[in-house]
Amino acid sequence: MFVSEALGLSRHASKTLEEKNILREAFIPHHFFSDIIEALRFDRKFGDIEEGTVVAKTINGVRTVRGFPKIRRALTLYPSIRKHFDREVAIEEKMNGYNIRIAKLGKNLYAFTRRGYICPYTTEKVRKKEEMVDFFRDFSNFVLCCEAVGEESPFVPKKIYGIRELDFFVFDVREIETSNPLKIDEKLRLCEEYGIKHVPFFGIYESRNAHETVRELICRLGRDGREGVVMKDPEMKIEPLKYTTSETNAGDLSYAFRFFNEYGKDFMFSRIVREGFQSFEFAENEEEFRKRCLRLGMSILRPMIESIKDVSSGEWVSEKIKLRFDDIEVLELFLRHLRKMGVDFRVRSIVKREKGAVLYFERIMRSTTDKIKAHLEGQPW
Amino acid sequence: MFVSEALGLSRHASKTLEEKNILREAFIPHHFFSDIIEALRFDRKFGDIEEGTVVAKTINGVRTVRGFPKIRRALTLYPSIRKHFDREVAIEEKMNGYNIRIAKLGKNLYAFTRRGYICPYTTEKVRKKEEMVDFFRDFSNFVLCCEAVGEESPFVPKKIYGIRELDFFVFDVREIETSNPLKIDEKLRLCEEYGIKHVPFFGIYESRNAHETVRELICRLGRDGREGVVMKDPEMKIEPLKYTTSETNAGDLSYAFRFFNEYGKDFMFSRIVREGFQSFEFAENEEEFRKRCLRLGMSILRPMIESIKDVSSGEWVSEKIKLRFDDIEVLELFLRHLRKMGVDFRVRSIVKREKGAVLYFERIMRSTTDKIKAHLEGQPW
Repeated sequence: MFVSEALGLSRHASKTLEEKNILREAFIPHHFFSDIIEALRFDRKFGDIEEGTVVAKTINGVRTVRGFPKIRRALTLYPSIRKHFDREVAIEEKMNGYNIRIAKLGKNLYAFTRRGYICPYTTEKVRKKEEMVDFFRDFSNFVLCCEAVGEESPFVPKKIYGIRELDFFVFDVREIETSNPLKIDEKLRLCEEYGIKHVPFFGIYESRNAHETVRELICRLGRDGREGVVMKDPEMKIEPLKYTTSETNAGDLSYAFRFFNEYGKDFMFSRIVREGFQSFEFAENEEEFRKRCLRLGMSILRPMIESIKDVSSGEWVSEKIKLRFDDIEVLELFLRHLRKMGVDFRVRSIVKREKGAVLYFERIMRSTTDKIKAHLEGQPW
Repeated sequence: MFVSEALGLSRHASKTLEEKNILREAFIPHHFFSDIIEALRFDRKFGDIEEGTVVAKTINGVRTVRGFPKIRRALTLYPSIRKHFDREVAIEEKMNGYNIRIAKLGKNLYAFTRRGYICPYTTEKVRKKEEMVDFFRDFSNFVLCCEAVGEESPFVPKKIYGIRELDFFVFDVREIETSNPLKIDEKLRLCEEYGIKHVPFFGIYESRNAHETVRELICRLGRDGREGVVMKDPEMKIEPLKYTTSETNAGDLSYAFRFFNEYGKDFMFSRIVREGFQSFEFAENEEEFRKRCLRLGMSILRPMIESIKDVSSGEWVSEKIKLRFDDIEVLELFLRHLRKMGVDFRVRSIVKREKGAVLYFERIMRSTTDKIKAHLEGQPW
């Protein structure tokens, strides 16, 4: 099997991989993906191979795109930063979108989602980025790890960045086969050289007092409704840590409680606990504390009631999304892709334009809808 | 085996019961429990035998005390009450304590916790209730299902009822072997005849508009910090439903977030969702809604921060409890009982009195303590 060969797996490991049914198709064959003959993604972690790793048989041979490693979270700034990092720590903004790896296979660029799907919509957008095309002409052995953010996002539509369509912000540049990251300064230099956008970089600080800087940053980012920061070893030898604003914790909770039966209790619980630690560490006065409590309570109850109201007036609980495509064939491919991913959705309309088309669809949150419906009809818990 | 015989299990069922390791010892042999030779409790549900069912070999033969059935919860008052019940529904207060079944085995009374443990502390208190002793002299084939409430409660210490020690409020009278309940009016009549306290009874209402009455009751009970109501078929042929006040939901959350790593996410999640449904159904104005949100947020963050502060100042997260005993031997037996139940506790002091002794102990919440400690020391999530 080409996957085992590409990853240098033993015969035993290779057999286990098959038995555990970990490999899944990463894409739907289509002339839009003409460079790829076959591509398989790791649906779960396997040994030291991350979930979302993709092995692709391309017209130029087999390539591996390693999965993006999970970033752990600091619950306290002090002493976490000081203990975790060496002398210095680099601080970058954590933007709120979806994680995309961009790589060149054969002649074209491809966008891989966190789980290793090759997304037609994102791929179409990526290929229009000339600076990226230029970059990969010179560095086809690299992967650009980006946050894909904007209002026209199939997964995390957000208005906060003032991006009406979708844009990409590099946070890591990694070697495609090994996933080894470039150092922070090399990454920034390359991005600037090619004119590629990267996530805001807030500088390098001494680890022993970086918690003060981060705290100020977090308060400022919070006021702007932004997500938080990622703290990194400038040499990229120590794993990064993330830390988020209270406003983002509340925003995440709003989203989760809007679709409360779709989302895991773990998701909710961890975000609530973060608030507790932040409030403790930031030693707020009573007024700030009450504001945080009100924000937390509102972020939980408002969206839940909104969903109950939707169902009570006969609607589905759903998330409405708008995406523009240059090519109607890619739009159709994207719909097949969503189905393949197991997304429960309904197309509301497709509006053809001079060039391409606009897709209006909604993700149906069936579990939340059914749960609410049952209780509104008098079903006990 | 005497359990299978008492319950009339087939040989096959009997074997399964053994294999699944469902039966556990219900008590610690001691002369305080002199009527019992052997007693086993069902640690889980088995077929139609409820968790907490106890089969006891006594000096008078084998007796079965059936487990108390789980009461489901209405998430909406309308149409739940109307759909669930027949023409009429009886409304009782749901008090906030721990569920105790009282039965007579041999010559004495015994108190069984929800899970089927025979609790020495509760048993000592029960035996002092002369009205109960009288009742069981006439009706040894019945079980009194009670809420045990008060400040000196080993499991749910509460000040709201103005009971400094511990008292018992009957909510069901059931046949010991079958668990068949008496009708509401028979239960009330018996309690009054013997002068046994029962949970407040709010009357019988027509099902089609009982939701209005319950809503008023819930608002009033909430203002007094009380828990909620249980709605029952006056004939006790349909299973009851419960419904709680927002103040109790918040109180439960406070407790759960004070000991956030001890308590299940399910526990928290379900209480939060209840708030959403209640807020929707009660169609609050903006001010009431903000008050609810603030209450929710506070009930989550305040106790969590309190626990973080405890650990940060070098203490354990724990729950402090005070219990008085008439007999120091029962106190010692109770400590062995707690250990048997798997409770992690530390005795702070035992103060001997003229008669008996006072036990001051704390339940140690080790998981929450360890979790907080790790994060305070910089451990990422």
